[in-house]
Amino acid sequence: MRIGILGSGLMGGKLGTIWARAGHEVVFSYSRSEQKLKKLVREAGKGARAGTPAEAAQDADAVLLAVHWSRVDDVLNQTGEMPGKVIVTCSLPMNADDSDLVIVHTSSGAEELARKVAKARVVCAFGTVPSEVLFDVFAARRRARRPSLVYCSDDAKSKKVAAQLIRDVGFEPVDAGPLRVARYTEPFTLLIAQLAYEGKGGPRLAYRLERFGH
Amino acid sequence: MRIGILGSGLMGGKLGTIWARAGHEVVFSYSRSEQKLKKLVREAGKGARAGTPAEAAQDADAVLLAVHWSRVDDVLNQTGEMPGKVIVTCSLPMNADDSDLVIVHTSSGAEELARKVAKARVVCAFGTVPSEVLFDVFAARRRARRPSLVYCSDDAKSKKVAAQLIRDVGFEPVDAGPLRVARYTEPFTLLIAQLAYEGKGGPRLAYRLERFGH
Repeated sequence: MRIGILGSGLMGGKLGTIWARAGHEVVFSYSRSEQKLKKLVREAGKGARAGTPAEAAQDADAVLLAVHWSRVDDVLNQTGEMPGKVIVTCSLPMNADDSDLVIVHTSSGAEELARKVAKARVVCAFGTVPSEVLFDVFAARRRARRPSLVYCSDDAKSKKVAAQLIRDVGFEPVDAGPLRVARYTEPFTLLIAQLAYEGKGGPRLAYRLERFGH
Repeated sequence: MRIGILGSGLMGGKLGTIWARAGHEVVFSYSRSEQKLKKLVREAGKGARAGTPAEAAQDADAVLLAVHWSRVDDVLNQTGEMPGKVIVTCSLPMNADDSDLVIVHTSSGAEELARKVAKARVVCAFGTVPSEVLFDVFAARRRARRPSLVYCSDDAKSKKVAAQLIRDVGFEPVDAGPLRVARYTEPFTLLIAQLAYEGKGGPRLAYRLERFGH
């Protein structure tokens, strides 16, 4: 697949690197500095290049939105309209000092995003694990018991795309239903963040959903 | 320990049964019918008995609150004040038709409860797994990789009590921090419910937090 990365920070930088190594064509964009983008591209190896947000979105089979919530409007202005595009978002609707969610309960960041980009198809994914664990999961992808990653969307086709990208990182994709379920996955992310950054054991944390009786 | 169960339905009935089998003294109370209470006691075996909410709370080392949110005030009226008591709650602040949380973001059911019973010590636990999985987890408690169960509270001593009760069911207790983290664990419960009742695979679902790099 051709994957455009909007926001090449902790999440976007690592996911893009992993997908490039997994054989996808990746365009990194929207980093704080040109230098950082170049470094990312160099380290991700062949299959990766740098570009503007518009270039990242253009011809992409999937676009990863991984910017701070306060940057969403700015980056969407730079990409322009993305009709029919699959947008995988891990951008949480946090307030400016990252202390709390700004949208909860009656909506979610993912649903707000879907309203902003009405012609695109939004999948909420990757928000529920810390960026620190991504390379660990990728390195352990041959293990029988993969960690889970929940995702949700209202569009069946986009879900297939997202599931593949999730699998490529080394997770077992878990379909959590329609996009409104982001109202639960977004606070769950804050629980994971609490355990990763405030609890014992550090941020290299993932989760596995376990079924009994099978 | 002596454990009082307030609300002997799906969660309270099963947890009380498991704790009785694990060697604790359990008083079941507040079921929809006397008959159901008697059946529970019979099935839980020695160590279990039925009582009023006041009897369940009296002399208890820990009280499990497992009633529907709409019943919290009623059951607390029946127990009377519980100064210094450890209250483990798995009661989610759901609206009357169980379609959504009534308290989110700026508070949580657990924090509201703590305000209602200002002299007691509240631990939020057990809400994050379906009742259907409890016996599975108990049966599998000798396995090396136990499922996790997050809990939170502002009181260190109560946390120890809750951790023991969680361990007795067969989970690995995971300290998620202060009681305000219930703002995240309660929506997480809705995510688990979505996966358990709407997704594929059925409700015998638990989760395991996995650390890398150790």
